[in-house]
Amino acid sequence: MPEPFTGLPVLDLRHAAPPARWRQLCERSFGLDGEADQSARAIIAQVRNEGDPAIIELTQRFEQRSLTADTFELPTARAAEALTQLDPDLRRALEQAAARVRSFHELQARALVTSGRDTPGEQLQSRVAPLARVAVYAPGGTAAYPSSVLHAAIPAKVVGVDEVVLLTPRPSEVVLAAAALAGVDRIFQLGGAQAIAAVAFGTATVPRVDKIVGPGNAYVTAAKRLVFGRVDIDSIAGPSEILVVADHTADPELVAADLISQAEHDVLASPVLLTSDPALVDAVSAALHRQLDDLPRREIATAALRDQGAAVVVGSRRALAEQADAYAPEHLELLVEDPAALAAEIRRAGAIFVGPSTPEAAGDYTAGPSHVLPTAGGARFSSPLGCWDFVRYTSVLALGPAQLREQAAAITTLARAEGLEGHARAVERRLKPREPTNT
Amino acid sequence: MPEPFTGLPVLDLRHAAPPARWRQLCERSFGLDGEADQSARAIIAQVRNEGDPAIIELTQRFEQRSLTADTFELPTARAAEALTQLDPDLRRALEQAAARVRSFHELQARALVTSGRDTPGEQLQSRVAPLARVAVYAPGGTAAYPSSVLHAAIPAKVVGVDEVVLLTPRPSEVVLAAAALAGVDRIFQLGGAQAIAAVAFGTATVPRVDKIVGPGNAYVTAAKRLVFGRVDIDSIAGPSEILVVADHTADPELVAADLISQAEHDVLASPVLLTSDPALVDAVSAALHRQLDDLPRREIATAALRDQGAAVVVGSRRALAEQADAYAPEHLELLVEDPAALAAEIRRAGAIFVGPSTPEAAGDYTAGPSHVLPTAGGARFSSPLGCWDFVRYTSVLALGPAQLREQAAAITTLARAEGLEGHARAVERRLKPREPTNT
Repeated sequence: MPEPFTGLPVLDLRHAAPPARWRQLCERSFGLDGEADQSARAIIAQVRNEGDPAIIELTQRFEQRSLTADTFELPTARAAEALTQLDPDLRRALEQAAARVRSFHELQARALVTSGRDTPGEQLQSRVAPLARVAVYAPGGTAAYPSSVLHAAIPAKVVGVDEVVLLTPRPSEVVLAAAALAGVDRIFQLGGAQAIAAVAFGTATVPRVDKIVGPGNAYVTAAKRLVFGRVDIDSIAGPSEILVVADHTADPELVAADLISQAEHDVLASPVLLTSDPALVDAVSAALHRQLDDLPRREIATAALRDQGAAVVVGSRRALAEQADAYAPEHLELLVEDPAALAAEIRRAGAIFVGPSTPEAAGDYTAGPSHVLPTAGGARFSSPLGCWDFVRYTSVLALGPAQLREQAAAITTLARAEGLEGHARAVERRLKPREPTNT
Repeated sequence: MPEPFTGLPVLDLRHAAPPARWRQLCERSFGLDGEADQSARAIIAQVRNEGDPAIIELTQRFEQRSLTADTFELPTARAAEALTQLDPDLRRALEQAAARVRSFHELQARALVTSGRDTPGEQLQSRVAPLARVAVYAPGGTAAYPSSVLHAAIPAKVVGVDEVVLLTPRPSEVVLAAAALAGVDRIFQLGGAQAIAAVAFGTATVPRVDKIVGPGNAYVTAAKRLVFGRVDIDSIAGPSEILVVADHTADPELVAADLISQAEHDVLASPVLLTSDPALVDAVSAALHRQLDDLPRREIATAALRDQGAAVVVGSRRALAEQADAYAPEHLELLVEDPAALAAEIRRAGAIFVGPSTPEAAGDYTAGPSHVLPTAGGARFSSPLGCWDFVRYTSVLALGPAQLREQAAAITTLARAEGLEGHARAVERRLKPREPTNT
């Protein structure tokens, strides 16, 4: 029998320096799990050395599934079939979500452009182009979210990635349907660190990719860290978080509902209220108590609220923005007067949900921006998953002889100052009178 | 006495599948150095636990330098003074390089824009903004390149990073002068894994940063990998590489000069020739032999050419593009007929140097694009260091009540399909008739 919910722990920042608990919450980061790291290391080595047989053996050992190399991949016709067979309401919902995610990312993709200058005798460019092949990881079992397939694969297809490979153990019908809607090119029913190793190094059956995105369990996360450098990865995913910023205008029932919609994800999720209205805290705790009562995932949500939850009280609107930036949440909801003005002041958040008609749940499914967001303070430096994750830039430099001459003195001076005589000579050789072979 | 240079090893791809050696070169990647990784782990733990005293102790132990916390930081006036005292020719060269790097990145920054849609009742944005604080690592000693300070720090300042922190042990006068020109905000004379740990976690004296960029030695690289996730890092730097792609129109002396300008960096550098003209190979080897003769860094360049060098021969112009993409070089030089057309076909390179008047050395100093580029095949997925490294995006979502209603059925259907009843309820609660408290 779980402990009942007894109210959010209150952290009052109005009259003193932030209490240790708030500093601790702001400094949250998921350490490397030593056991997962060691396991992932061994799995990667085995897959790298042995290839397909290792995947078969590891899938049997960890997932009790018997695969052969012939059954790693599911034909995309299976996904198309799953879409056809889907409950019509669910299909309509998935289609609406896919359409909105696609149109938002089409605008995002249009903003990723080649820059530079192109004048006679000098072309200097940062040329943008899609990656060739990427993998999207989607967990199986109870953590299988078809919406995550849409929110990770669609941005990749929108920018023109040649081949999007979905990695997912035991895919459900709705996950397969989502893959079909997202335009996934290949589907491998593989999971765990062995799936990450397979696409990082390639095997006889599994293609090597350029980047791996999407959240997974501790072993998947550890494996992604270990192959980083060999392939690119997206940011490292920790448990989900919401910071609801609310003032005297906020409806405590909405605050509670939105804290719960985060808390129900995972006992490790972080649902935090930040408010300038001390009276709101008790009202929210009471609403939480009521709303938790008949929630199917009550135990999970209660544990998350109890262990990572908090109600942080500050004395001014300015302090709301400051403490939101200090916490740097994955999801930031603004239930305040003039929320757009406050949104403009906040710098560190994965996604900002502005005003009472924008619940975080809208962002999870239909709004448009990807729900794959930086966690654990990663909003200080990481972006939401987006089209930028699936392109890269190449510098293109083309100088004419006159332009090289103009720069030659500076180049040779700097090269010699750095002790690189060969660099200086490579330029000087070009300044000599033309040889017939150098056309 | 080093072995003399005896010609590039020839790999002929015209009549058979690529030889094992070519596949090996294309698959190059720098493994984690186990010893460096273990040392870096211990150093990070020590700095994280003990702070400044750990930095003092480690700097004494590894670098035999006696610092106090008061002397970690150099006043920026010292850098300004170094610039004033600099040899005028060198100053002019640095200034020309800085100006060109700055103007190129100003164009790049202008292309990083907020995207999305803003209509009555619905605002959806990917809002772009600079990071708050970043660190640029610049090695000390013989590997101290003032040009790298310009090429890493200027893009950060151009996009408006509040505070750029330079980490550099034993900075030379010209490195300090470059820091002044680049607009570096703070300079810490710290190096090694301890410098990386200090800015990743912060100490009483050293500020915590959001991202660390710039190449370093094996310990610095290992430390950057270990703190990744806590802070962002740029791509993992390996030894430098050039692929010179040349056909019958190429001047063998220029090919040789450019291979040497890469080879002289490091015995681990990779200087590779890819050609469709078998006759070019001997001519280039002969030119290398001649040009190496009086090169100050002859031994380094000879070792690099011998150990990582190769002359790869293919049978067609199309194969030049294909094999260039297979190798995915940091630097790609095109000494061919119509080089711009070939440049357009190539997808995987850090920077492409088009035509005989664009030696790689121009890119190292004055051309404009950053010379900090992905190595070890990272050009499959990483970009040159650029303004994109110093910004992040925040999703901003603001729906009106009508827009939420239009999406409500899809959201609740998908939430319930994923077993997240709390998500569905958070939306449904908003569809009820307004309560007086929810203004």
